[in-house]
Formats: sequence, structure tokens, C-alpha cells
Amino acid sequence: MRKWVEMLSGAIAVVLLILVVSCAPAGPNTSSYGEDRAQIEDLQARYLFALDSFDLDTYVSTFTEDGILDIVEYQVQGRDAIRKSLEESRSVFDPSTENEQGPYPATSRHNITNIVLKIDGDKAVGKAYWFHYGNNNPERRAEIDAYGHYEDEMVKVNG
Amino acid sequence: MRKWVEMLSGAIAVVLLILVVSCAPAGPNTSSYGEDRAQIEDLQARYLFALDSFDLDTYVSTFTEDGILDIVEYQVQGRDAIRKSLEESRSVFDPSTENEQGPYPATSRHNITNIVLKIDGDKAVGKAYWFHYGNNNPERRAEIDAYGHYEDEMVKVNG
Amino acid sequence: MRKWVEMLSGAIAVVLLILVVSCAPAGPNTSSYGEDRAQIEDLQARYLFALDSFDLDTYVSTFTEDGILDIVEYQVQGRDAIRKSLEESRSVFDPSTENEQGPYPATSRHNITNIVLKIDGDKAVGKAYWFHYGNNNPERRAEIDAYGHYEDEMVKVNG
Repeated sequence: MRKWVEMLSGAIAVVLLILVVSCAPAGPNTSSYGEDRAQIEDLQARYLFALDSFDLDTYVSTFTEDGILDIVEYQVQGRDAIRKSLEESRSVFDPSTENEQGPYPATSRHNITNIVLKIDGDKAVGKAYWFHYGNNNPERRAEIDAYGHYEDEMVKVNG
Repeated sequence: MRKWVEMLSGAIAVVLLILVVSCAPAGPNTSSYGEDRAQIEDLQARYLFALDSFDLDTYVSTFTEDGILDIVEYQVQGRDAIRKSLEESRSVFDPSTENEQGPYPATSRHNITNIVLKIDGDKAVGKAYWFHYGNNNPERRAEIDAYGHYEDEMVKVNG
Repeated sequence: MRKWVEMLSGAIAVVLLILVVSCAPAGPNTSSYGEDRAQIEDLQARYLFALDSFDLDTYVSTFTEDGILDIVEYQVQGRDAIRKSLEESRSVFDPSTENEQGPYPATSRHNITNIVLKIDGDKAVGKAYWFHYGNNNPERRAEIDAYGHYEDEMVKVNG
């Protein structure tokens, strides 16, 4: 499993997501570009916090019920299937497992930058860069170790 | 002091801030999620520019008068006390001091990503990732050397 | 040419841009801070996607016709001149050229964070951090290798 992450290192990792904007409505301005973009940026940030803390309830809630997680040639559809696949790949994503020995548990951080969003009504398509740093080495030294980009398809559900 | 930064490297550094959104009002839409988020993102960016350039006037202005700076178990309350504590820790934050020898002064950069914000009226709570890179080595080589996350509490003062 | 990138590494690289917000109008709220900031963040992200994929048509479209690209003491004005200078410096910016040997082509990624924006009507000034990572080494190992900051001047053209 560790190998899989390293395979991604530096390669173009395309991740296709169907996400649900599950925030409460933000008031009367929710239909403008700025309002929608703000909600989506927040969603993307919550998605990555959930991934890095291996909080699967929150993680799958960022997908629609029939959402698709697509990592290069690895595709999973539906919240239950996505949760199951993450659980099976726990050693890849959960920093509390398969740690290199060190003075304290290693941590893992996925970051998103350069968010491009095209929004059309209740649908949005986006792309963004992601990069990963962590400290899964004996010295718990911070190091960047992988990057790629996202391609997202999003729908707005219940506001 | 240098040791303190390295201690943070890779550890979960929780920073609790009470910040003041001191921007001028942005027009009639200031009460929506998108408008508030835009102001807060700008505030967070100005906060980090001020920190990395050791511009303490601007830095303390991003806190409320009774704001709290909380770095793990290190807590300071009030603008004057925060300024004093930063001045005493200058060698930690100001890249122009305690430089490793090199062809030009070293620089220090804190970055914020993955900003999650919940906004309720004039109050907001947020979390975000931070990471730090710099070139405080003899070759002035760029290197990531620390990361953590913020937990912020914010209030909106004077618009 | 490779030397030029390394010269930037860790140095303060000031880039002065005049960008055009060429997005379609986002509805009736385009004149607020949040709406303008959202459009500008999108523009900055598209700018960097275009740069890293060496998509010069998109790249120059983010400048006004008489826009200025200013990298430290290297200044170019006008879309045609900017395109020409990028073409002449292709080996600096296009990861598909001058690659270190490796199992697949190297890639290059510029990221923007800490975006500070002051917006006044159809004009905006901004500053932000940029950093660059890539894998232009024989192992295609991810590594951060340069950073600096942007200083932008922007105008809003055709909405």
C-alpha cells in the first residue's frame, strides 16, 4: 500500500469527485459566483481535514450518495463503497497506522491550492492542485512527498 | 529559540486566535457567507504577511484588543502582551536574525491552506492547515520545515 | 536557463502583473468584495495552471493587452511580447523540456497562497506568496525548490 502513494508521487494524479455542498444555506446571496465558490472552498477544506484525520463519516458525507471517487484507474462509486475502499486502504491514508518509528505518531496532510471553479446553476466543475506533506520518518521531519491535481464535478443538493 | 520551531515541526500545533476583521465594510453584502469568508481569508493572509515580515504593528492589529495567541501551551492575551512576547521571541520569527550564514539574508514563510470556516452572525470559528518553508541554510535552498493547524475564533468589530 | 530558476530559489521574487478579469459576469453581485475576490482567486489559479502546462494562449489572456510581466529586473509589456519572452524561456517553465532523465516526464507546479487583495471599484492591488515544487530529478521525487511573492495590479475589463 505504501507503494501506491509513492507511485503517485510526482505523477499526475487525477481525482474525479462528485461532491455534495451540504452546508446550510448562507442567506439570500447563495446563487452568485462568490457565494457558491465560498461554499465549495469550505467543502474542499472539510474534505481534506476528514481524509487526513481518517474521519470516514465526514469524508463520505462530502460525496453525493452516488458520488464517484476516481484516483487514476481506481474508481469507486457510492458512499458505502467509498467508505469500504478507504477502510481497506487505511494504511495508505491513516497516519496512525504503518508509522515509521519515531518519538510520536506521524501525521499526514493533503493541501489544496490554485482552485479553479466554473459554476453553472447547481452544477460546478473544478480543478485544483493538491500536494501532500507529512513526517513519516524516524526524525518526524516535515517533508513534501507527493502532489497531483484534482478534477471535480460537483452538484448542489438541498441548498 | 530555534529549538522551539523545530519542536513544532510535524507536531500538531494548535493556535487559537481571536482576530478582528478590521477591513472597511465591503458594501451592502457584508452579511453573507461569501462576503464574510472573503474578509476572513484576507485577514488570515495579512496576518501571515505581518508575521513573516515581523511587522508587529500590523500583526497585533489582527487581534482584538483582548485577543489570545495560543501556541500549544504557550498563551498570551492582549495586543500589548502579544507584541511583547513576539519581540522576546524575535529570533524565532524574524528571518533577519539568527540567520545561518549565506549569500543573502534568509527568509521565512508561513502559509495557510484548507480553510474551514463556520460563520454565525458576527462570530466565526475556523480551522486551517499551516506549513512553513524557508531557506535558513547555507545554500539558501528552499525547504519545508514545519507544519500544523490553526483553530481560530473570530469576531467582527466595526464591520 | 535552469540557473535562473535556481537564482530565484529563496530570493524575494517580485512579480508585478496587470491582469484582466475576463470571467463572465457572475450575476448582480459582482461589485462586492466577496464577488470580486472570488473572480480574482479564480483568475490567479487559471494563471498558474496555464503557466505550468505552458498553455500560452490562456496564459497571455490573463494579462490586459498592455499588461506587464515583471520578474525582479526582467520586465515585458504587452501580450505578444510576454508570449514571445515565455517562448524564449520555454526551458525554464515547460516541464516537458530539459528534463532530468527519469521514468516519465517531470512536472512543475507553481502554487499561490496567502492572497491579500485590496479592491477599489474596477481596480485591485494584491500580494500573495508563491512557491514551486516539482520532480525534476532522476527519481521523480517531489521537492519544493523555489518561492517568492507576487505583487499584482489588476483591472476589471468587460465585467
